Amino acid sequence: MGIKKRKWSVEKKNSAVQCRKKSRRVAHGPRSRLLGKKYADSLVELPPYAAIRMSGDEMNPAAVAVPVEDVQGDQRWMSQHMRFVQECKDAEPEVLFVGDSMVQLMQQYEVWRELFSPLHALNFGIGGDTTCNVLWRLQNGELENICPKVVVVWVGTNNHEHTAEQVAGGILAIAQLLTSRLPRVKVVVLGLLPRGERPNPLREKNATVNGLLRTWLPRLGGVQFLDVGGGFVHSDGTISPRDMFDFLHLTASGYRAVAKPLSDLLLQLLEETPEERRASLV
Amino acid sequence: MGIKKRKWSVEKKNSAVQCRKKSRRVAHGPRSRLLGKKYADSLVELPPYAAIRMSGDEMNPAAVAVPVEDVQGDQRWMSQHMRFVQECKDAEPEVLFVGDSMVQLMQQYEVWRELFSPLHALNFGIGGDTTCNVLWRLQNGELENICPKVVVVWVGTNNHEHTAEQVAGGILAIAQLLTSRLPRVKVVVLGLLPRGERPNPLREKNATVNGLLRTWLPRLGGVQFLDVGGGFVHSDGTISPRDMFDFLHLTASGYRAVAKPLSDLLLQLLEETPEERRASLV
Repeated sequence: MGIKKRKWSVEKKNSAVQCRKKSRRVAHGPRSRLLGKKYADSLVELPPYAAIRMSGDEMNPAAVAVPVEDVQGDQRWMSQHMRFVQECKDAEPEVLFVGDSMVQLMQQYEVWRELFSPLHALNFGIGGDTTCNVLWRLQNGELENICPKVVVVWVGTNNHEHTAEQVAGGILAIAQLLTSRLPRVKVVVLGLLPRGERPNPLREKNATVNGLLRTWLPRLGGVQFLDVGGGFVHSDGTISPRDMFDFLHLTASGYRAVAKPLSDLLLQLLEETPEERRASLV
Repeated sequence: MGIKKRKWSVEKKNSAVQCRKKSRRVAHGPRSRLLGKKYADSLVELPPYAAIRMSGDEMNPAAVAVPVEDVQGDQRWMSQHMRFVQECKDAEPEVLFVGDSMVQLMQQYEVWRELFSPLHALNFGIGGDTTCNVLWRLQNGELENICPKVVVVWVGTNNHEHTAEQVAGGILAIAQLLTSRLPRVKVVVLGLLPRGERPNPLREKNATVNGLLRTWLPRLGGVQFLDVGGGFVHSDGTISPRDMFDFLHLTASGYRAVAKPLSDLLLQLLEETPEERRASLV
């Protein structure tokens, strides 16, 4: 998978608090007491209904972890999830991508091999996934045994049953889950792209989601928003099939426009700060 | 689109019966009488419910032309269809590909530029399409103004509401429509691929569809079946994500395995027979 196999060991690094490489059951026990209250708190599971509530104190349906039901009968969604869980056991990613088909298809293009494989990136994208499905996957094994420095989140355009506020809340819940499970991780949330050949309600909804994320995400430590959709809508309001072959999914040149600013940001984030470098030398 | 622009004219070729380059309304009038009864017969529209009936004389629901309803709200399906109709006005394809995402995604890979673009191929694939949706598109503009020598059909794996017999009937209806509208066309129907990581009912269903097509299609003149799924299931019954990244859609190497035998067949079919060559010289 282009991921450098590198055995991570508690003995070699003192950054054990960054992630729980071994079973979380161990970390919940005596080891968490050893590491102090702050670490123990970070291990508290998000409730099945994530902590994000909408106005009126109602649960946000886009922040509920839900697996995809196998209505077609070939179990493909679960097969993909289990493959990702297995990859967590075999690989040591520095960067983890998680999301829907926008993430998944990126791996099929040259730009993935060129810009992201060299960063030891894993791709946990599944076509059609909503925020609910990604939450379920992350709570059911796709964060076990790995300790990525950066997680890229790109999901939400498939949440057709949810309002823009709910979708943004669902994405926020994913970011919270990540920072809770991987305390020193840096999270990059990619903005939802415009979609459809011409202006339409889904474009407006995705733009509203992005506006909310731009306000909400900086409140979470270690989480940032990156808008990569700036160049896709032309002056006449259309999107070109040269960028999105079906007016939703990106072509090779569409992915290139997205990947360059993302790659620049990842390279920057992967550089350790002086404090991090000092900590790793202790 | 890599399609050579070449003006087709009645004056330059006597193969006017091969297709109706201009408005079919004209062809239905005096011109059809000029060309004789056989040609006029070939212009008879398939009824809204296509001619394929199942046992018990019931209409086959997989052979009914149906557009995709815009439930999401961005009109992407219709935008893609209208783009294809426009391409028919601008391009002169020798080969037309029509079908679902299996067709559509092929164009995103290098193998398309390498093997099919040089054949002046157009790609009318739309993700998620069923036989019903393809029938609708072909009856609503995607065969106007073009005169391909070969049409490649690859659709059916999304017909989840239909039995294997119905799906095969729907594909047969597409082939009949093509040979009716383009009397000298050669049609290649690609077999449905196995899907899912492990053996499952959808694999069996697709194999049954292929078995029926293998029997039925040779009865239609100018239509042949090509099974390209032989190498994807390993001896332990699994399909590898190296071939199908989500256990349905092909990777670059998966497409290469499919494209080579298809390209060989297309090159063979595109070679004019001595009769065809004589006819074009008259």
